[in-house]
Amino acid sequence: MLQADFYMPTRLFFGENALQRCREMILRAGRHAFVVTGKNSAKKSGALDDVTTLLTEAGISFTVFDGVTENPPLLTCYEAGKLAAKDGCDFVIGIGGGSPLDAAKAIAAFAANPDLAPAEIYDDSLRTRPTLPIFAVPTTAGTGSEVNNYSVLTLEGGRQKKTFKAADSWPTAAIVDPRYTATMSNETTLSTALDAFAHAMESYLSPKSTVFSEKAAVFAATEIFDVISAMPAAYDADMRTRLSLAATAAGMAISVTGTGFPHPLGYSITLLDGIPHGRACAAFAGDYITYNEKCENGRQRVAEFAAAIGTKPAVLKAFLPGVAAVELAFSEDEIAERVELIAGAKNHVNSPYVLSKEEIYDIYRAHFLKK
Amino acid sequence: MLQADFYMPTRLFFGENALQRCREMILRAGRHAFVVTGKNSAKKSGALDDVTTLLTEAGISFTVFDGVTENPPLLTCYEAGKLAAKDGCDFVIGIGGGSPLDAAKAIAAFAANPDLAPAEIYDDSLRTRPTLPIFAVPTTAGTGSEVNNYSVLTLEGGRQKKTFKAADSWPTAAIVDPRYTATMSNETTLSTALDAFAHAMESYLSPKSTVFSEKAAVFAATEIFDVISAMPAAYDADMRTRLSLAATAAGMAISVTGTGFPHPLGYSITLLDGIPHGRACAAFAGDYITYNEKCENGRQRVAEFAAAIGTKPAVLKAFLPGVAAVELAFSEDEIAERVELIAGAKNHVNSPYVLSKEEIYDIYRAHFLKK
Repeated sequence: MLQADFYMPTRLFFGENALQRCREMILRAGRHAFVVTGKNSAKKSGALDDVTTLLTEAGISFTVFDGVTENPPLLTCYEAGKLAAKDGCDFVIGIGGGSPLDAAKAIAAFAANPDLAPAEIYDDSLRTRPTLPIFAVPTTAGTGSEVNNYSVLTLEGGRQKKTFKAADSWPTAAIVDPRYTATMSNETTLSTALDAFAHAMESYLSPKSTVFSEKAAVFAATEIFDVISAMPAAYDADMRTRLSLAATAAGMAISVTGTGFPHPLGYSITLLDGIPHGRACAAFAGDYITYNEKCENGRQRVAEFAAAIGTKPAVLKAFLPGVAAVELAFSEDEIAERVELIAGAKNHVNSPYVLSKEEIYDIYRAHFLKK
Repeated sequence: MLQADFYMPTRLFFGENALQRCREMILRAGRHAFVVTGKNSAKKSGALDDVTTLLTEAGISFTVFDGVTENPPLLTCYEAGKLAAKDGCDFVIGIGGGSPLDAAKAIAAFAANPDLAPAEIYDDSLRTRPTLPIFAVPTTAGTGSEVNNYSVLTLEGGRQKKTFKAADSWPTAAIVDPRYTATMSNETTLSTALDAFAHAMESYLSPKSTVFSEKAAVFAATEIFDVISAMPAAYDADMRTRLSLAATAAGMAISVTGTGFPHPLGYSITLLDGIPHGRACAAFAGDYITYNEKCENGRQRVAEFAAAIGTKPAVLKAFLPGVAAVELAFSEDEIAERVELIAGAKNHVNSPYVLSKEEIYDIYRAHFLKK
């Protein structure tokens, strides 16, 4: 059966003057904004200045919350949501990488439902009021969070991630101006590009893939592979534009399909060992291809994907973990600790080949077992 | 500058069980539905039965308005809107070809604003209340109306069309089940496919084209050209599925760009001479290519478009008017009458080459002047 459903309620403003073109929508969203950022990129990129200038000139008051850390904790979102409610905010603007954008969605939900306990955000029946409108301004080219309703949050204790995803958590608008990515370091540019590439590849191979998600995934993967496989010494404006659009397209692709097992496999080494998310996913890209090639449908989809982006599975298998360059060494106990945290993830079933827990052990041992 | 904005707020349910998969959304839309159809295809296709059965089983009452004729008159929509308001309808379901779907949008606007005079629908400042939610169930594979906010209406006197287009006229959901197109005659299948092809080609060449609209246009045009250039004696289920998805994709493409000059050029011979809309557009496809090839940018875009769908401009130039097979013969006065009706259309400027009024005369004379 041909799968061709489509849903993307976020309005995308891409490129030059994206923020100014979104101005009317922001003005209609209310009188007080809650601006969600981290400590760095929103400021360094100029995006925070541009947003607060626009708000000030429009006579919209705002609260800036810059307390979002990487792998945003659920509790931080809960506290910020309470603050947004106390300040009477009408809408939320997330500015930054995946963390502030994901956090903005949870904050918008808590702000509208300030009586929720933190964990209750995951219960649709308790979130009785629609979340505040969300605007998303990425300063990296990776997450795709600006065009989907996923909010990946770190649970109390900092050892596990759990995705919050509500029907009304889609940003009202995504404001994607590649200039805001110009101040990213080469390292962050590469890691976030690897994240977007993982989105595209995992979406393409997902059994939920549709005509539309597949086209978005191929477009994104082609662009990213073309830019990063040239291993540029620096990323120029044209490359940044291509990576930004590709990351957004990959975000659209996973909005349809979700991600596959490299994502949960990466979560443990991100949360416990500090490996940036994109590199953590790419570390398992070779395994993703190898295991999927074990079944007929997976082998065919891998071959189609590689051909569609102009390369071969063997190249992807070597290249992606190679640039991810994750070097860790664990004891058996440390491996067990990490595998147990991710063994139950739903993403495992979202591939042609479904990993068993034993196979997750095999993969972790092959990569990381201390000699 | 790279153009990559995107907006498609309609949720698309495509293929098997599309209507059932949309059930929850319909149930949430209200307690009384206004069902808009023409006299034939909604019934013959089974779509009307499926919709009324779903509504009945869900306990949603409904009014069926089957008075939409081809090239739907503004006045019909006005009257139907008043009726929908009188019956206390909460939402509108359009079922049929382009005419009922386009009419449904205008009816939803009049139903929410029953004090409007007919022509006032075009004035955003007078339509103070948001239109009722709209669901669109196409029974042809051409219009694309299910995934955009255009409503092409025929003005009083029946000699001119004018597009109504409001920010809230996008269908809430498009329910595209290719089975509903199975009862279309070969002739209607071809004419509606030509309409969708015109959408794809005119969108691709539009100066407003974006990365996303271009991909949708190429996909649509490739599929349609592949199916119709084989000149099938009958259309099987696979062909119908391909044409349905292509027409929807082409509808997405023009939602971004609008259409080019073949559309208004065709309106006169549709309204005054009864040529079906798709064939009327295709009759001018050769001129569209020829004139656009007069400028550098147009020549390049035509060549890219033809190459992308696997053919050559010369083939399109001959093939499209050939299958449209429009044979009409007019006096100079009759030509003047038709050209004057369409000379002011906004679509004329939406191409690399902008036609002058004299050139519209030239085109009409070349096609239709009595020898």
